[in-house]
Amino acid sequence: MTTLNDTVGVADVIRHLSLYFEEKEAKATAYGRQFTELWHAARHASEGGKKFRPALVLTAYRAWGGNDEAAAVAVATAFELLHTAFLLHDDVIDGDTVRRGRPNLVGTFMEQARDRGVGGTEAAVWGNASAILAGDLLIHSAQAMVARLTVGARERSALLDLLEECLFVTAAGEHADVAFSTSVESPVFSEVMAMTQWKTAHYSFQAPLQAGAILAGAGQEAVAALGEFGRSIGIAFQLRDDLLGIFGTGQTGKSTLSDLQGGKLTPLMFYARQLSGSDELRETVGRADVTDADRDRVRQLLEAKGARRFVEKLIDDHRHAALAAIGTPAVPEAFQRHLHDIAHQSCERAA
Amino acid sequence: MTTLNDTVGVADVIRHLSLYFEEKEAKATAYGRQFTELWHAARHASEGGKKFRPALVLTAYRAWGGNDEAAAVAVATAFELLHTAFLLHDDVIDGDTVRRGRPNLVGTFMEQARDRGVGGTEAAVWGNASAILAGDLLIHSAQAMVARLTVGARERSALLDLLEECLFVTAAGEHADVAFSTSVESPVFSEVMAMTQWKTAHYSFQAPLQAGAILAGAGQEAVAALGEFGRSIGIAFQLRDDLLGIFGTGQTGKSTLSDLQGGKLTPLMFYARQLSGSDELRETVGRADVTDADRDRVRQLLEAKGARRFVEKLIDDHRHAALAAIGTPAVPEAFQRHLHDIAHQSCERAA
Repeated sequence: MTTLNDTVGVADVIRHLSLYFEEKEAKATAYGRQFTELWHAARHASEGGKKFRPALVLTAYRAWGGNDEAAAVAVATAFELLHTAFLLHDDVIDGDTVRRGRPNLVGTFMEQARDRGVGGTEAAVWGNASAILAGDLLIHSAQAMVARLTVGARERSALLDLLEECLFVTAAGEHADVAFSTSVESPVFSEVMAMTQWKTAHYSFQAPLQAGAILAGAGQEAVAALGEFGRSIGIAFQLRDDLLGIFGTGQTGKSTLSDLQGGKLTPLMFYARQLSGSDELRETVGRADVTDADRDRVRQLLEAKGARRFVEKLIDDHRHAALAAIGTPAVPEAFQRHLHDIAHQSCERAA
Repeated sequence: MTTLNDTVGVADVIRHLSLYFEEKEAKATAYGRQFTELWHAARHASEGGKKFRPALVLTAYRAWGGNDEAAAVAVATAFELLHTAFLLHDDVIDGDTVRRGRPNLVGTFMEQARDRGVGGTEAAVWGNASAILAGDLLIHSAQAMVARLTVGARERSALLDLLEECLFVTAAGEHADVAFSTSVESPVFSEVMAMTQWKTAHYSFQAPLQAGAILAGAGQEAVAALGEFGRSIGIAFQLRDDLLGIFGTGQTGKSTLSDLQGGKLTPLMFYARQLSGSDELRETVGRADVTDADRDRVRQLLEAKGARRFVEKLIDDHRHAALAAIGTPAVPEAFQRHLHDIAHQSCERAA
């Protein structure tokens, strides 16, 4: 089975990203040490990760016979920049200073300020300002890469529409997520599901697949089918992520306590909290001092109440919907098989 | 003397802005009440103000005989969106919840959360998240308006370069500003001046004038001259703004205490602080409880130490440099006269 990481061209995306940041860092030196440092940290934030959004762009592009490699790599890189920008602003919003066990951009600049004897409040201002500005720059650059393509007017227009929609929907999802986690809004289950789609599925699956196909000149029916597939598989991916956040074995490199501590309102937790006898769950979730024992108890509760089973069923349902959407002559058969592989990887992954 | 506010087409920009926000608000309804509210608040944030950046785009465009009114209005509107985005993110970074005496976007969403019984910390998260996301959306849309223009490939490319430079330089200026105000960096005078140019002059004067001229097909020499003019006059404008922030008569609609309370490191204050006997100044600036009497004492100090005179001289010097830059046949004579008017307004204004 081919995996997304094997996608031809992902190495080119990593190279393109690297060249982009080198150019910016070089330019930044004229604006002082701190601004150069900011670009360096932004580059660091873009490194690592699975690069599966660029891989989706490239694989869809190839499926429809696209042969302008440079254009495909530019669009693929744009999605990775957008992803990095979203993470940077997400961290500011959530007040996170750590990612994957190391200081994130906010944390790096906070530490730097403290090392210079700056107080905690001001150090936090410095860290947050740095991440806000870095995100702004990457949001702009993501679009600049697409806007500069020398492609037909129709393709450019369709890609710009897609990117604008992508920002719009993702921002809507992030806004809803914060509304729920701050208790500004009290959602029903379907709203938590919609938030998941807007915040993650749209820009991570739907838009990259569609962008690759559009750039290669695929027809409307194909683009619509990929949109349906991406939406459903993106939701399934996120639901799997939520399960791994609690039941994971640590292979994700992510603590199985952080989701609990953050009190994230995932469909999993929302469903569980609505069940009778979930008082213990409510008390545990969102506490800063959650222990391994607390997590184990939460796991037991989620199993006993059927919440885990419920989410597994949801993942299955979305996977079936995704596969049904691409069962059309508009999607080349070989690519249908590849999308089956992607669906499998997204739903079954253990990391 | 013609004023910028009289510029033909500014009303079209206001209409274009209004249509843009109407479309977004209508689309947002599918994403719930809060996201619709976010767009409504973003529109509100873009209203009022002098709209002088769009006016600069339009007036330069006309000077070089541009006749694609729709394209000029789109570029002019893009600069106003960018300006609004910068203000929104600025407010988050500075922790400001009020602008022109009324709650800004952060403050509006914070109040809304508190009205719903949400605690202070969470309400602040909600307010800041809302402003970060609104700014992200406007940064994207500003560029989308330019990227979608049906103009020649050369003009599009030059405009995209200009916009990317604009984001880059403004972010550098904002980053430096925060570095200085948090004491992460201890600048020398020339660095405070550079920060002023990067943060304000570039996107407020230099880039809008150049964008209008480029769109109309002006030559390199003209574009370079406008850049020089915009840079110098933009610095003069900001220095005047700094003086009005302390010595203003309230006509600006801005309190003459807020700059003092915020402890902003302007060239004015930086110069004054370096002089002997400025201990009282250091103690007063940045205090939250600054009174009218404190401000009066600061005014006396700035006068007595010659700081005000020093900045007035700087304004004059930059004004002369600006006018010298446009004394070239590459700039039409009638437009040179108009730029003299603009220089006068920027340097002499009392509000």
